[in-house]
Amino acid sequence: MANLGFVGLGVMGSRVVKRLLDAGHSVTGYNRTKAKAQWLLDAGMKWGESPRAVAEAVDIVFTMVTNTAALHAVTLGEDGILAGLSRGKIYIDMSTVSPAAGRELAAQVAAKGAAMLDAPVSGSVVTLEQGTRWIMVGGDEALFEKVKPILQNIGPKVNYVGGNEHAALMKVATNLSLAVQMLAFSEGVLLAEKFGIAREKAVEVLLNSVIASPMVKYRGPFVLKMPEEAWFDVNMMQKDVLLALEMGRQLDVPLPMTATVNEWLTAARGMGLEDKDFAVLFQVLARMAGVGK
Amino acid sequence: MANLGFVGLGVMGSRVVKRLLDAGHSVTGYNRTKAKAQWLLDAGMKWGESPRAVAEAVDIVFTMVTNTAALHAVTLGEDGILAGLSRGKIYIDMSTVSPAAGRELAAQVAAKGAAMLDAPVSGSVVTLEQGTRWIMVGGDEALFEKVKPILQNIGPKVNYVGGNEHAALMKVATNLSLAVQMLAFSEGVLLAEKFGIAREKAVEVLLNSVIASPMVKYRGPFVLKMPEEAWFDVNMMQKDVLLALEMGRQLDVPLPMTATVNEWLTAARGMGLEDKDFAVLFQVLARMAGVGK
Amino acid sequence: MANLGFVGLGVMGSRVVKRLLDAGHSVTGYNRTKAKAQWLLDAGMKWGESPRAVAEAVDIVFTMVTNTAALHAVTLGEDGILAGLSRGKIYIDMSTVSPAAGRELAAQVAAKGAAMLDAPVSGSVVTLEQGTRWIMVGGDEALFEKVKPILQNIGPKVNYVGGNEHAALMKVATNLSLAVQMLAFSEGVLLAEKFGIAREKAVEVLLNSVIASPMVKYRGPFVLKMPEEAWFDVNMMQKDVLLALEMGRQLDVPLPMTATVNEWLTAARGMGLEDKDFAVLFQVLARMAGVGK
Amino acid sequence: MANLGFVGLGVMGSRVVKRLLDAGHSVTGYNRTKAKAQWLLDAGMKWGESPRAVAEAVDIVFTMVTNTAALHAVTLGEDGILAGLSRGKIYIDMSTVSPAAGRELAAQVAAKGAAMLDAPVSGSVVTLEQGTRWIMVGGDEALFEKVKPILQNIGPKVNYVGGNEHAALMKVATNLSLAVQMLAFSEGVLLAEKFGIAREKAVEVLLNSVIASPMVKYRGPFVLKMPEEAWFDVNMMQKDVLLALEMGRQLDVPLPMTATVNEWLTAARGMGLEDKDFAVLFQVLARMAGVGK
Repeated sequence: MANLGFVGLGVMGSRVVKRLLDAGHSVTGYNRTKAKAQWLLDAGMKWGESPRAVAEAVDIVFTMVTNTAALHAVTLGEDGILAGLSRGKIYIDMSTVSPAAGRELAAQVAAKGAAMLDAPVSGSVVTLEQGTRWIMVGGDEALFEKVKPILQNIGPKVNYVGGNEHAALMKVATNLSLAVQMLAFSEGVLLAEKFGIAREKAVEVLLNSVIASPMVKYRGPFVLKMPEEAWFDVNMMQKDVLLALEMGRQLDVPLPMTATVNEWLTAARGMGLEDKDFAVLFQVLARMAGVGK
Repeated sequence: MANLGFVGLGVMGSRVVKRLLDAGHSVTGYNRTKAKAQWLLDAGMKWGESPRAVAEAVDIVFTMVTNTAALHAVTLGEDGILAGLSRGKIYIDMSTVSPAAGRELAAQVAAKGAAMLDAPVSGSVVTLEQGTRWIMVGGDEALFEKVKPILQNIGPKVNYVGGNEHAALMKVATNLSLAVQMLAFSEGVLLAEKFGIAREKAVEVLLNSVIASPMVKYRGPFVLKMPEEAWFDVNMMQKDVLLALEMGRQLDVPLPMTATVNEWLTAARGMGLEDKDFAVLFQVLARMAGVGK
Repeated sequence: MANLGFVGLGVMGSRVVKRLLDAGHSVTGYNRTKAKAQWLLDAGMKWGESPRAVAEAVDIVFTMVTNTAALHAVTLGEDGILAGLSRGKIYIDMSTVSPAAGRELAAQVAAKGAAMLDAPVSGSVVTLEQGTRWIMVGGDEALFEKVKPILQNIGPKVNYVGGNEHAALMKVATNLSLAVQMLAFSEGVLLAEKFGIAREKAVEVLLNSVIASPMVKYRGPFVLKMPEEAWFDVNMMQKDVLLALEMGRQLDVPLPMTATVNEWLTAARGMGLEDKDFAVLFQVLARMAGVGK
Repeated sequence: MANLGFVGLGVMGSRVVKRLLDAGHSVTGYNRTKAKAQWLLDAGMKWGESPRAVAEAVDIVFTMVTNTAALHAVTLGEDGILAGLSRGKIYIDMSTVSPAAGRELAAQVAAKGAAMLDAPVSGSVVTLEQGTRWIMVGGDEALFEKVKPILQNIGPKVNYVGGNEHAALMKVATNLSLAVQMLAFSEGVLLAEKFGIAREKAVEVLLNSVIASPMVKYRGPFVLKMPEEAWFDVNMMQKDVLLALEMGRQLDVPLPMTATVNEWLTAARGMGLEDKDFAVLFQVLARMAGVGK
């Protein structure tokens, strides 16, 4: 069993740690707010006093934080992970951050004699807990093979994508379609509803059609009943969409669908719905169409 | 076995007739160009001299034509289907036409003492020949139950949607997502490619992700190799998208994704690509991004 | 002075007739509802019992109606203008209708030995009454020169554009920018307002900037105070935008700005604001941004 | 006459300095590349060895640089302007940078006992040289009144907008319409051209219509003949559009027109046209419409 470290014990990160502990690994964790990690400490996780301390104590250190700024906060500086890395150590970032920022970090990690992989994970806690999460990994392939069994403890379907940041880029390239598909789905449901077809019926038909991606299948029913707690809220969805738009500008790829849907995510925020699952795009469009209260 | 008629023996219609003949039904067919129907006549189909003659000779008559104008051509006038309908006969339209036009026709059919169902079928010939086609039906439910076994000979998954034109509307509400999903998918692939990821790899990753609808799964690989013959060409795709936009305006439903993708279909036409499968949206976007020749 | 006829005495048409009467011309008018024309009869206009009767009684007949269907209603059939036209007569359509429909009509007029010009007028009554209206004319140039003095009685700036329907097309090509400019202007005002700049100040700055087209100059202040009566309401604006989109599809010209703004006009309708001046696009966007009630 | 300093002597900055020298002011200048400033030194400008040196030597110091990063480079650090400011000095930034970044800088300037105004200038050199440039100013109003005569030496129309960064915001809120109006104008021209109207005629008509903003009037003719040198190139235009989009996200204002046109600017870059005046949007659209080579 491996000697692992984990920095960033939020909703998703903490569940990943739990799966690693359950698989029998030793895990040293760090989080800005220690209290939130108590249940993991109770489950056998060790505590590191700083990201650097975690990196010093283990062979393989993971991060899973909210955005590029947070990643810089835990990797740079005197107490950061970089300061604790040394020859032979492996650093795996599971955050969804700017591929450009990740690439820069990979170079700094290499300068310390360590190596970095990107294995961005986002989306719903449900598929993670079910163990059906599909994990993409970027970086050196030999390194990937080495850590693959550990990643399989997180999600059985682990897939090597290519060089550094390739997984991060593919995450972004995938996620732009989440919001786009959801808004187009909503357009279809509202057309049906205003034509006189029951919303339930319209959803049923669409969920059995050729446009029913796994995302549409699990999120489509939300237009009938929004979940108590967001699986992936508007702010998180927009974060990924903005990363796509940033890459589009850097790489000179026009993104007409992504750019359009992004403004509807902004509208959701304007209407005060930023904490809702991004399926709330349906409600934003419904208001524009004069449907419902 | 039933006594059936079929008007419109194009690529799709002729294959439907073949399935009905194979199932043991008697089929009387009509097509503007008789020569194209020779293989069906060889397979046992009878010939009707006009749409009206077909309607007079059978109990249940089907139409499957290109657009609203073509539907009017075979239903109205002295030689049209309406002139051949009488009490107790059933008329099933499988074309994808304006739900508004269909509703008007249903009223005219009812005035003749006959009854109409809409069972629009579009999309690929492949799923039809595989017998995996999902067919939605609108109209009177008792009538639907009566013809259901016959429709199951066309495609096993037959589904009652609701009143007249409800199936036609749902077809349109579904199909708008086809083009939208394809363009968003293309955005993702091009981001990946310009970042340095092989196009094949990008497609593979996306086809295994949560955005992989059945449509994305079978059409996504077209960005690697376009099919010799279009499954569903730009003109056909745009026809459905325009029906959606027409309904959006009639029903006051804003369709931001649909309206945006429609202009890219127009661009495909501007570039002379209207005969290609609509997966050619990828190539349109690629040119804008300066990729390829 | 000329012997003129005028069919369609709505808000705009009646004011055109008034200007023609004031200039000393003889005018025979027709309108579906005679009562609305009483003030013109009081001012000296003669009455024609039908569009045909008007055409028979005069040398030059004008139409100014709402849309293509209305134009067909007054030109076709037994009592239509075509039936009243004969060699040497001139027919001038001032409606904004589909250039394609207009072209067809021009051919029918020519078949009667008469000639047709298109001189579409839309927009605000104010510039018409001020006599500052700019009128574009399409059709035969010699014919244009002949009627030019009469058209100058309507608006001093009369401009020959080219062949039949060229003026109609240019009207559409111009008007698509009205809605687009208004929505972009609204985006700017709302950015300013949510940044903490008074709406009045933002409008003042924009009205003095390089983006202040005449349209922006007279309609921009509407975001501060909407007019009691619409100058050009959402439905009229969308009619022109839809003509542009129809031409874009026929001519294979992608219209990304026009297509996008059209969905916001649809949203205005969805919100029940179709009778408001199209400057109400500001309010639609404001709701999306969570501004105002 | 005033004792002025100027940091950033690019295309626009150098011309501003020339106008200040012509008006009789003393100007101490600094630029990263001194050679480019030779003609100004020949015209009487003094040289400062660093931004800090300039700030120390004068009463009022201006900056005019490309973007936020460049602004930080000349204001922060040991040799930066901030280090040279002291009580009573005035700092005026004429760059177009993020209003948020500008606000932060204003606070740092205030902490030194100095005061900051924002007077962003962008757009064409022509209107600057003609002395018809309209300058908006944000910051303390009393301070504004004090420097107003100097600003009027740059452009006669000087206008106080409001608090700090209000001018910067209004610049962005204005400029988003530049690109939007240009693309919509192009849509109109291409519709006309593919309908059979000469491009020259279409431009003439549009330039005389209600949509002809000053921007459309001077840039519209570029679709007939692109200028040798860009007045405002695609990259500069997109920089401003991106600032608008950034503010839209921060302030929760959906910007459907701005977001859409931004992707067409990206397309221009993808096609290798980033150095052209942004009127090249016409050519991007023309390619999509299959017009021209």
